[in-house]
Formats: sequence, C-alpha cells, structure tokens
Amino acid sequence: MTADNATNAGRRVAVIGLGSMGYGMAVSLKRAGFDVVGFDVRQESVERFVAEGGMGAATPGEAAAGAAAVVCVVLNAEQTEAVLFGEGGCAATMDEGTVFVSSATMAPSVARSLAERLEKDGRHYLDAPISGGAQRAATGELTVLVSGTPAAMAAADAVVGAMAAKVFHLGDAPGTAAGLKIVNQLLAGVHIAAACEAMSFADAHDLDPAKVFEVITASAGNSWMFENRVPHILDNDYTPRSAVDIFVKDLGIVLDIARSEKIPVPLAGTALQSFLMTSAAGMGRDDDASVFRLYQRIRDVADDAPDGEGPS
Amino acid sequence: MTADNATNAGRRVAVIGLGSMGYGMAVSLKRAGFDVVGFDVRQESVERFVAEGGMGAATPGEAAAGAAAVVCVVLNAEQTEAVLFGEGGCAATMDEGTVFVSSATMAPSVARSLAERLEKDGRHYLDAPISGGAQRAATGELTVLVSGTPAAMAAADAVVGAMAAKVFHLGDAPGTAAGLKIVNQLLAGVHIAAACEAMSFADAHDLDPAKVFEVITASAGNSWMFENRVPHILDNDYTPRSAVDIFVKDLGIVLDIARSEKIPVPLAGTALQSFLMTSAAGMGRDDDASVFRLYQRIRDVADDAPDGEGPS
Repeated sequence: MTADNATNAGRRVAVIGLGSMGYGMAVSLKRAGFDVVGFDVRQESVERFVAEGGMGAATPGEAAAGAAAVVCVVLNAEQTEAVLFGEGGCAATMDEGTVFVSSATMAPSVARSLAERLEKDGRHYLDAPISGGAQRAATGELTVLVSGTPAAMAAADAVVGAMAAKVFHLGDAPGTAAGLKIVNQLLAGVHIAAACEAMSFADAHDLDPAKVFEVITASAGNSWMFENRVPHILDNDYTPRSAVDIFVKDLGIVLDIARSEKIPVPLAGTALQSFLMTSAAGMGRDDDASVFRLYQRIRDVADDAPDGEGPS
Repeated sequence: MTADNATNAGRRVAVIGLGSMGYGMAVSLKRAGFDVVGFDVRQESVERFVAEGGMGAATPGEAAAGAAAVVCVVLNAEQTEAVLFGEGGCAATMDEGTVFVSSATMAPSVARSLAERLEKDGRHYLDAPISGGAQRAATGELTVLVSGTPAAMAAADAVVGAMAAKVFHLGDAPGTAAGLKIVNQLLAGVHIAAACEAMSFADAHDLDPAKVFEVITASAGNSWMFENRVPHILDNDYTPRSAVDIFVKDLGIVLDIARSEKIPVPLAGTALQSFLMTSAAGMGRDDDASVFRLYQRIRDVADDAPDGEGPS
C-alpha cells in the first residue's frame, strides 16, 4: 500500500457508467485504495464489478450517498443530466462539499449549466473529459482535461490522480475542458476519415498499403490517427477498438454546437457524413477505420457495373 | 572533398526550375561536387545562381546538353511536359543513357506517359517527387520518393543522394512515387484545413490558443501539420512558408484525378474549397495557415451584423 493508497483508504467514490471506459476507471480507483461503488443501467456490469471485489448500487443516487466524489462516465450530456437530476439521481444524495467529476463528451454550454445547477446547493462540479481508450482507463493512465473552481479541483484531486497519467488544468470555468475535448474530437474524427479516404485513394491506384503506411508516417501527411488506425486496415481487422458510432455521436455534438453558435466547420460536417454512411452501411459497431471499407465497397460497386460505371 | 565529391566532380547535372525548392537543390548538388547548370524562366534566378558560382543556360535543352542527369523542379505536369518536349526542351538534347529526374507533383498517369515518351529513345525517366520544404532543399536533406526502372534508379542514384536525407524506393514503375506523393498531399491539405477549422472553433469558444496547442499536440487529435502550422496562427505570422495557392494547386490535382478515375474523396474536396475561399479572399500568396484567418473573418462579419447574425 503506497502513501496514496493509505490516504485514500476508507474514502468512498461512486462510478456511474461501467462501460469500457468507466469499468477500467472504477478498477483503477479501487487499485488506488478507494472504496468504489459502481452503478450501470446494465445490471450485469454491476454484478461483474461486485464479483471483482467492488460494491454495487441500484441507482446513481444510492451510489453517490456517502461518497466523497462521483465519477460520471456515461455516453452524453442527456445521460449525465439524468444521472444528476433524474429519478434516483445523484444531486439528491450527494453531501455538501463533495464533487461530481463529469467525463462524458458534451457541449461547453451544457457543462456550464450542469455545474451551475449542482453548485448552487454547495456541491462541486468538475468538468473532466477523458481520452486514452479502455486499456489506459484500466491501468489508470488516461489523459484528463479538467476545469472547475479551485474547490472542485481540490475535492477531485486524488480521484483524478488515480485515473490519469496526464492531467491538463485548464482554469476555473466549467466548460473550458469540455470545449477543448470537442476541439480534439473534431480533429480526431476528420483525421480518421481522412486516413480512410487517403488509403482508399491509394488502393484505387494499386499502391502497396504497407509502403503507403511507411512513407506517410515518416512524412508531413502523418497524423496520430493515421498512425493508430491504418494498421487496422492493413490487418483487415475491424474488431472495434473504437466504433464508427462513437464518431457519429462526437462529430454530431461538434456539428450541433457549430450550428447553434454559427461556427463554420465544413470538414467536420463532411467527416460526419462519412461516418454516417459507414454506419448506414451496417458497420456502426465496427472499428472506426471501417470508413475505408465503405469507400472500398463503393468502388467495388462501380467495378461490377456495366462499362465500369455505377447506375446513372 | 569527400569520396562522393571526388566521384561527382566533372559530372554535369542540369536543374530546371530555380524556385524556392529547385534553387536549394541546385546548391546542394553543387556542394556535392557536381557541375551544375541552372535554367529558369525568370532570368534573374539564373543570374543569381551564376553569381554564386553555378552555370546558367538559356533553355532547358541547352542546360541538358552534355548533362548526365536533368533534375526538373517546376510547378506541375504541364510545365514538366514543356521542359521535356516543348520548344528548346530537354528531350532533344539529352544523351542516350542519361536520366530525367522529375520532381513536380503530378498525376501518376501523366508520369507514366512522360516516362514512356522519353524512354522509347533510350533516355531514362525517374519519377521522383520531393518533400521537406525550401530549407531542407538547400541543405540536401529532402525526402525523395522514387520509382522507375533499375537503369533510371542507377543513373540518378548519386544525384538523388546529394539532395536527400531520406529516399523511399517504391519499385520499378514510374507513377508509383507520383501516386504516393498525391496521397501525402491529400492528407497534408486536409490536415492544414482541419487545424485551421479546429483553431477557429476554439477561438469562437474563447479557448486559450496556446493551451489548445499544448493539449492537442499531446493528444489523439494531433497531426504533423497541426504541430507545424498552428504556431503561425499563435504568432499571427502569415509570412508564406508554404502558400495557400500551393494547396489550391495540389488538392486540385487530387480532385482532377479523383474525378477522372471516379474515386470519392469528400474531405479533399471540402479542403480544396477552404483553400479556394482563402485564396479568393486575397490570401493566396500568404501562408497556408491563413485558412484560419478566413474563418476568423467570416465570424467577425457575423459579429458586426445586426443581432449577431449575417445577412439572410
């Protein structure tokens, strides 16, 4: 037991949402010495966590009762609002001075509004979007962007530290971290779709895909996503590490914000359509590199048609 | 004088096109011991090269006469064809067994066609697009993609070696290197426009741009171009390192190929429109990070309009 573990022992933390990210974060918090209570709408996720030595709860409110911190890792803003203010929600049971650590990707304006509603009754809200994937969630090595009042930061410090290899402190306004996460998702989504589009162009030119990967990753056309996702294409392995529908959701958030705030984002809009077409083609739950298969399929159709052309 | 310099001494090389890239390449070849003859349509570029100890020629053909290799670094396929087969062109004066090293970005089909026309008379054609920028051209540290017959590779080996820090050998078919360069330009163009779009989104949300840069370059949203171009935005410095119109040209080539070969590239199409709008707004010769200024200007217009909205 490290010094951290000794300090954390006996401190209760609730984790709401035991999906691929939340489950790993709950495990990391338990490893760091916290008493962790998990909740998920899927009862089997709670049972699995209990079987591994965690505690379970029947509602978010039950999980949050007596907890020093509530970590919320659900899909989106709507679910986060329900976790806080819906029936059986946390806001009704959280003690004064405790902190809600909000990790779902959402619009900055929503993060600000949720913070305001929770904080007027003396509870703290930390805007804390995450990145790094399920594996780093399980090893406590996520990247966490945080913004919130000094009191919220202080109340969540040990909890965030147990989940993160890297924490970016972005000031005292909830919404700042959410905004930066959205900027990252805008770029990540465009770059995945661009990687797939470029590999499709290369494929149409019969370029050796392994050679394309070697050259591009050493060139100015490289991106983090190109380097990470193109190996899935090379291996023809579309087991979901991150699914197409995640970017349908995240670029959807980008586009909703852009439209409501009148910010032109033509590439994000085009990338969303690429993910949407891939999802519509039945690959929504497959790996997001499946955008490549969409283009491949489109080109195959053209090859099968008379005179090498699709129907007019 | 190194071993290379001794080997190269007395061997004549022509460089056609003494722009920001070609001039640096001519200097690098001279440094490596070659006798370098330069040609450019702008007489003052030739004079500058002569003043620095090079030789000048009045036509591409004159430069190529007696040269073991001709390095062609002009703007596009049309200019390359004119350099080879136009009036005063190289094809008429190149000796048998000499090599034409073709570095302009162009469609693979054009590279194949130029190679075929030149090689039927016993001269060699090396498809050899370059990347790395003017500074690395001058220091002989370019990245060069090469494809062509073994004879073309052998004839150009010392010349390419004098210009490059890194050479990718892509097989014996002219057009392969051109195709891979196009794939790189597709990605590079999309990534620059995406970086500008994302920074505009961040700006609209009053996020600290330096903090955005710090977080994104450490996150999954990063790209080589984001890391390279966003500092221009942070410094508000649009002195052209690479101009907007370069990507109007290069994405134009991508889109021309895509249309003629029926390859869907929606992101490249959208990125081209972003560069085109930026050029139309009078920033064609400014740094390509100026796409950010386009979005900034668009949003400023909206802020100035009644009720915070643009004209309907």
